[in-house]
Amino acid sequence: DPKLKIFALNSNKPLAEKIAAEVGVELGKSSVTRFSDGEIQINIEESIRGDDIYLIQSTSAPVNDNLMELLIMIDALRRASAHTISVVIPYYGYARQDRKARSREPITAKLVANMLERAGATRVLALDLHAAQIQGFFDIPVDHLMGAPLLADYFIRNGYTNADTVVVSPDHGGVTRARKLAEFLKAPIAIIDKRRPRPNVAEVMNIVGHVKGKKCIIIDDMIDTAGTITLAAQALKDAGAIEVQVAATHAVFSGPAVERLQNSAIERVIVTDSINLAEDKKIDKLVIVSVGPLIGRAITRIQENKPVSPLFENRFT
Amino acid sequence: DPKLKIFALNSNKPLAEKIAAEVGVELGKSSVTRFSDGEIQINIEESIRGDDIYLIQSTSAPVNDNLMELLIMIDALRRASAHTISVVIPYYGYARQDRKARSREPITAKLVANMLERAGATRVLALDLHAAQIQGFFDIPVDHLMGAPLLADYFIRNGYTNADTVVVSPDHGGVTRARKLAEFLKAPIAIIDKRRPRPNVAEVMNIVGHVKGKKCIIIDDMIDTAGTITLAAQALKDAGAIEVQVAATHAVFSGPAVERLQNSAIERVIVTDSINLAEDKKIDKLVIVSVGPLIGRAITRIQENKPVSPLFENRFT
Ligand SMILES: Nc1ncnc2c1ncn2[C@@H]1O[C@H](COP(=O)(O)O)[C@@H](O)[C@H]1O
Ligand SMILES: Nc1ncnc2c1ncn2[C@@H]1O[C@H](COP(=O)(O)O)[C@@H](O)[C@H]1O
Repeated sequence: DPKLKIFALNSNKPLAEKIAAEVGVELGKSSVTRFSDGEIQINIEESIRGDDIYLIQSTSAPVNDNLMELLIMIDALRRASAHTISVVIPYYGYARQDRKARSREPITAKLVANMLERAGATRVLALDLHAAQIQGFFDIPVDHLMGAPLLADYFIRNGYTNADTVVVSPDHGGVTRARKLAEFLKAPIAIIDKRRPRPNVAEVMNIVGHVKGKKCIIIDDMIDTAGTITLAAQALKDAGAIEVQVAATHAVFSGPAVERLQNSAIERVIVTDSINLAEDKKIDKLVIVSVGPLIGRAITRIQENKPVSPLFENRFT
Repeated sequence: DPKLKIFALNSNKPLAEKIAAEVGVELGKSSVTRFSDGEIQINIEESIRGDDIYLIQSTSAPVNDNLMELLIMIDALRRASAHTISVVIPYYGYARQDRKARSREPITAKLVANMLERAGATRVLALDLHAAQIQGFFDIPVDHLMGAPLLADYFIRNGYTNADTVVVSPDHGGVTRARKLAEFLKAPIAIIDKRRPRPNVAEVMNIVGHVKGKKCIIIDDMIDTAGTITLAAQALKDAGAIEVQVAATHAVFSGPAVERLQNSAIERVIVTDSINLAEDKKIDKLVIVSVGPLIGRAITRIQENKPVSPLFENRFT
């Protein structure tokens, strides 16, 4: 039988350790370093011939370096006769470039999918892709994990399961995600109707739904510059919300994000460890829940040829 | 008829300008910038539908960023209905990872070739690839340009065409290149027999051939950390050479390169502009000859369906 092995690249070793611990294996021996000119050098320090490899890498910043690490490692594993190469991408970079919004734009999320397949990936595990359609960019199997049950757990443990709670989607694209969390919390939803004139610039918002006197939980797939989310929080407060929390799977936290969150009306920010945050970005109001156990269980189920969907049917933990 | 258009990415705009000037066109209007999180954003600001595109990009440091710029731009051009997409790669990064020298190594030079093709490149123009075999990594046409005639010109103009001159190959792999330059200069060759224990570390050298009382020109495809080349120069001096110059197509100049060259026995270093050197790396003993005219003429000939090889049969200029 092929042996299950988990390898970690450089973007998120702490998460990879947690995943390996859940699966009950040690991380495979490998190192990814740089030659003097900055080119990536990979050493796989144990035989992987005939093995089922799970390769953990988030393509977070520095996105191009992390992506190339992943592609080069896949190449090395394929040439070293791995039986299967499952790439586990807790955060999928370039996911927002998923369509031609303007003429002559690239569709980089598809390019990345093509590159992963061409390099030799045989399966993808992703978590809360910015658009579920990205699954269709691949011709190999994609298992799409959801962070909502995990985030729900946090709120359930903290008592947010009564009629005082409203789950808020910060845009129309996120309504499915908000409804999922709302189901877990048995809470109603509200939707923010926003316009964004340019990338990384947030805009005026109207609230669809009841938030006055309520505890609001805004849920999104990612927090990047935190512009939208901090404006949304303020809009909710202005509309009479008594408390605003934010839940998001991916803590991108670029540019002014940390400062904006810190100075915002947001009470608490709940994210996962899909992206390995630098210590100076771990502000007081931040709560990080780990997706390590979730991904670890998903790997075990995949390896046993069981569906991963039961992991989301009930709350996770 | 399809229109010829030249686009430049960020790695080497000055060279792209020279190429466009030689071809007699303006550079196409486009910009490559970054989103707040570091992801590449591309704007092609003119229609290119049905056009023959030449895209200029050296995959020099930062290699992963420059490579991703190239791949994303190819994706955007393909989706914008370019007729052909010829990628002009004056310096081809990852070229030294062209074989499995040890177990479980990647062959990144092949991975890069696969990525370029998968993205949609229809032709490649390269210059002095580290190994000519990299041409075979592509299934699309590759035109492989040579810097030797250009470098030869410099030496001919400076009187290095008599029996006092010896062209030296710094290793066995470079003998063909040295013979080419020697032919142009009507000079004999010598070969340095070296061993390199680890990457980026140079080693003891034996000289095969006559160098005593001679003016030596060491020729290589690239100068990276300059370890090998400075040791070779010293070995030649120790063996009685009266002068040592170094000629190389690609000025990678990483790590201690500039300091080593400056403090070395080397009289003068002749390189091309295949890599856009930072100002602080342009030391006094450096001479830069442009490959802009060469590449520009090659593009014109390709567009006219003429062979490019005549550009190398005689000295260029
Ligand atoms: N890394 C990025 N940062 C900010 N905006 C981006 C990024 N990548 C793509 N975009 C833009 O974000 C928009 C898509 O985001 P969305 O409407 O939320 O799906 C498109 O207009 C993209 O051009
Ligand atoms: N960017 C790089 N810098 C230094 N050495 C490299 C680089 N890429 C590959 N190598 C190593 O260089 C050797 C090949 O160089 P060569 O023998 O000159 O063809 C192989 O052992 C590679 O592992």
